[in-house]
Amino acid sequence: MGYLHDGHLSLIRLAATHADFIITTIFVNPAQFAPDEDFEKYPRDPGKDTALAESAGTSILFMPSVEEMYPPGYLTYIEVEKITQILEGKFRPTHFRGVTTVVAKLLHLAKPHVAVFGQKDAQQAAVIRKMAKDLNFDLHILVGPIVRESDGLAMSSRNIYLSPKQRTESTVLYGSLKEAERLISNGEVAGSVITAAMRMLITSRSSAKIDYISIADAGTLEELKTITPGDSVLVSLAARIGGVRLIDNVIIHVPRTGV
Amino acid sequence: MGYLHDGHLSLIRLAATHADFIITTIFVNPAQFAPDEDFEKYPRDPGKDTALAESAGTSILFMPSVEEMYPPGYLTYIEVEKITQILEGKFRPTHFRGVTTVVAKLLHLAKPHVAVFGQKDAQQAAVIRKMAKDLNFDLHILVGPIVRESDGLAMSSRNIYLSPKQRTESTVLYGSLKEAERLISNGEVAGSVITAAMRMLITSRSSAKIDYISIADAGTLEELKTITPGDSVLVSLAARIGGVRLIDNVIIHVPRTGV
Repeated sequence: MGYLHDGHLSLIRLAATHADFIITTIFVNPAQFAPDEDFEKYPRDPGKDTALAESAGTSILFMPSVEEMYPPGYLTYIEVEKITQILEGKFRPTHFRGVTTVVAKLLHLAKPHVAVFGQKDAQQAAVIRKMAKDLNFDLHILVGPIVRESDGLAMSSRNIYLSPKQRTESTVLYGSLKEAERLISNGEVAGSVITAAMRMLITSRSSAKIDYISIADAGTLEELKTITPGDSVLVSLAARIGGVRLIDNVIIHVPRTGV
Repeated sequence: MGYLHDGHLSLIRLAATHADFIITTIFVNPAQFAPDEDFEKYPRDPGKDTALAESAGTSILFMPSVEEMYPPGYLTYIEVEKITQILEGKFRPTHFRGVTTVVAKLLHLAKPHVAVFGQKDAQQAAVIRKMAKDLNFDLHILVGPIVRESDGLAMSSRNIYLSPKQRTESTVLYGSLKEAERLISNGEVAGSVITAAMRMLITSRSSAKIDYISIADAGTLEELKTITPGDSVLVSLAARIGGVRLIDNVIIHVPRTGV
């Protein structure tokens, strides 16, 4: 969606290690915003984005208009069931249908051999993988790691909305994920114990309101009541810091016992 | 869906005039049948189909299993809104979502430059055209004309269900379409007058029950109360002859006055 930061640029550079021709798409997609969300005020800077995308190795920058992507009379949407109704989908019921639809359109237009997405949107990556598998898209999906500010805050175009106080308090989000990592590596297996510890940390900051904290299987996104050796655990959260909705996550690979 | 007849074979031959490599797909698609419909008893003859498809010019015949197309945990569907809720969609509410989903999958698997469908399923052709346009599929869609038995009955794999008496009475369907053609070429412009005449003809056969008769714009499928010079009119119907549900249609191009 543009307003590029180092997280986006890391994905273009990741693409460059797998392809010799790179198409970057920048499109603030109205179909993935609810009417009460920030589509109109979502930050945009096409001039700066063009320079940054080119510097990171973009061969073609595709910045269509809303009218090009959704001409009058547009009627077609792609729905991935179940895994779009939990986590982000619970708070943003039409969000993923907008994401899958625009991604399918962009894949048909660009016909890439490799498509790159960011781990910051963990559920989005899982939903797109599922769509691509179910609909037999012939492409390889790569998911690049989260890029963070020096104090741990995950890079996001929405971070510019934060006031100085909110910006300071926002570091608690990654702090709570590190706490989950610490608990799990110390042998904690109860999802409820981990989320309670995270919840306590986050709500200690006056500007933070939690939408969800989830301990789930990283592949299926199913909630894990009990963590089992060998699990890949996606610990993810969404919280509003003041009026700014932020998401973050870590994946924790729990070693098999005795291996 | 196989059980090939001359209608299907005409589409393979049409493909052969546009391509030098032809993939024919045969798949009785459970996603386009409602639970109360004839998925289980839909006629199948893969041996004969293989010989017929090859004789018509097929390069590769793709006959996947249900498990290959919809493996356990399958979750993704494509929805074209509005034009799937009328006509056939009113009587078969989940039908077109099954059609668009399987067609998108087959297009991703085969990656054709040209895709051929039959005019017999007029609404299906319009829905697929709309999906392909909306989702930016890079392909050319051809729609081949209806092939009829010598007495006018549109060829259909379901015709084998008809008893001899029903088979005789079924010719009234094309008869009613010819009557619509005659009325329109004689200057009739009121959709209600045309459908009333068709309704009277069809219900004169004791085994016939009408699901719908439609006078619509051939492009948008919007019902036409009044036919205007220059219109392309899709006259379509569905009726049950005994227990056998049949569909048929004609497209009538109404000349512009004074041209």
